[in-house]
Amino acid sequence: MSDQSACRGLWVPALTPFTADLDVDATRFIAHCQWLLANGANGLAAFGTTSEANSLSAAERMGLLDGLIEAGISPAALMPGTGCCALPETEALTRHAVEHGCAGVLLLPPFYYKGVSDDGLYAGIAQLIQRIADDRLRIYLYHIPPMASVGFSLLLIERLLKDFPTTIAGLKDSSGDWSNTAAVLKNFPSLAVFPGSEIFLLDGLRAGSAGCISASANVSTAAIRALYENYRKGSEDLDAAQERLTLLRQTFQTQPMVPGLKAVIAHARSDPAWATTRPPLLPLDGSAAADLVEKLNQLDFDWPV
Amino acid sequence: MSDQSACRGLWVPALTPFTADLDVDATRFIAHCQWLLANGANGLAAFGTTSEANSLSAAERMGLLDGLIEAGISPAALMPGTGCCALPETEALTRHAVEHGCAGVLLLPPFYYKGVSDDGLYAGIAQLIQRIADDRLRIYLYHIPPMASVGFSLLLIERLLKDFPTTIAGLKDSSGDWSNTAAVLKNFPSLAVFPGSEIFLLDGLRAGSAGCISASANVSTAAIRALYENYRKGSEDLDAAQERLTLLRQTFQTQPMVPGLKAVIAHARSDPAWATTRPPLLPLDGSAAADLVEKLNQLDFDWPV
Repeated sequence: MSDQSACRGLWVPALTPFTADLDVDATRFIAHCQWLLANGANGLAAFGTTSEANSLSAAERMGLLDGLIEAGISPAALMPGTGCCALPETEALTRHAVEHGCAGVLLLPPFYYKGVSDDGLYAGIAQLIQRIADDRLRIYLYHIPPMASVGFSLLLIERLLKDFPTTIAGLKDSSGDWSNTAAVLKNFPSLAVFPGSEIFLLDGLRAGSAGCISASANVSTAAIRALYENYRKGSEDLDAAQERLTLLRQTFQTQPMVPGLKAVIAHARSDPAWATTRPPLLPLDGSAAADLVEKLNQLDFDWPV
Repeated sequence: MSDQSACRGLWVPALTPFTADLDVDATRFIAHCQWLLANGANGLAAFGTTSEANSLSAAERMGLLDGLIEAGISPAALMPGTGCCALPETEALTRHAVEHGCAGVLLLPPFYYKGVSDDGLYAGIAQLIQRIADDRLRIYLYHIPPMASVGFSLLLIERLLKDFPTTIAGLKDSSGDWSNTAAVLKNFPSLAVFPGSEIFLLDGLRAGSAGCISASANVSTAAIRALYENYRKGSEDLDAAQERLTLLRQTFQTQPMVPGLKAVIAHARSDPAWATTRPPLLPLDGSAAADLVEKLNQLDFDWPV
């Protein structure tokens, strides 16, 4: 990567806790974000898919971001998700993040209309950059076709990089398709590329990725960060550490990811309130949660207390 | 249908015009809505897919709805779309519509998270109804899996109707799958069911539907309304009129629907500004628009002047 200011390492899409009334729980959210930074996160990709960000209003997202900064978290450690279906909302969230001096924004494409053209997606991003009109803006493209359906093709990335080489700083690839991540890394060496799962952490680093942004980093934080640092130091035995991370990730994947991770935190911190999700997501039922806890205990999981 | 107060007939998902700066054009929008009501619409299902509603901010939607009512359009002729990904935004738009006394709201399910359970979708709607806490609320479920991916299964509809028999008033079926529409009509005779295309108008009416809510009703308004009224009067030759409506609809479907319909209005009203869409949708290019106009002229289309 040519840009030394780009984000690197482990960035965590922090889970968003809710109260029993399904309102956002700013107190638990800020405490969890501080815990993540104290336990291995290089930064926070708050308001991603794992954060149930698409179940939050724009006002809720801005309020929580304000709260993180008021709590003393450096904007340099923040890459909030700001991509909405509607351009004016994407613009408002992006401006808010830039004005806070955040390291970057993680940009979902508009995801309601299906079968839209690369030209249409390009036009929206060009319009956003023009409206924000701030040299500090750094965009990390959020490619997650399993949820958004709409995604960033290689041709679209190439066109965006050509026209906005400084602003388009990176990409998170949550396609789950290593061949796509490898193609992005090969074709666009200037981009800070983050695989969307620690399963691809070591392969990614060896191919030039910037680190990873992963849901399960909410609970496997220290172990993922350790492998990242050990790779940078040129340590041996990296593959064994990767195998263990992969096994843990596959265990989380036996349940719906967001409710499962919330159940893990609720168990680790003896705080049942943490299990709450906002519809359309639902908490794990008791037996599913117990099963996940049991599987993790069998793996000697380092609980995120 | 047992509820005589339910919406019936032709409800139009009014197109939303934009200015050259991609802001909503309230003046053209209100004029178009008045034109629709003067030319055959029984009501307006404003802020649907055709309205590019998912490209509008919540504030823009509320401002346009205020504008329609200030312009003298009766709330009894309004069924605004209010379903967003985030429950607090769905709640705000729904409350705004109910407080205006709108006939109903057209409710998309939260459409970001894929593979969500019927239990999760049920929980969101139950929570919405509890939060609105207003006996005037009438929900029309908006089933459009080609865009939203997430939809309303027969089992979910049954459960919602059982628990909220007065509030759940109807369903728009934009699946494009007549067998689904037929199953909804057969299983839930109390629902006001609107096929999402006039292709199914006559089949729908014969099977007990309430009318239709169709994109192309923005431009085929009078002809669709005429068939609806002729069916109610027991006229003959209904099939020939249906065949013509189907042929016109198939002609619109030769282009992306929203840009195509906007091109038709721009041509009919000699008003090029009407062609503007908001990204990720793009206007038709000149040759595509000319081709559509030519095809419609060959069919002696009654232009929406």
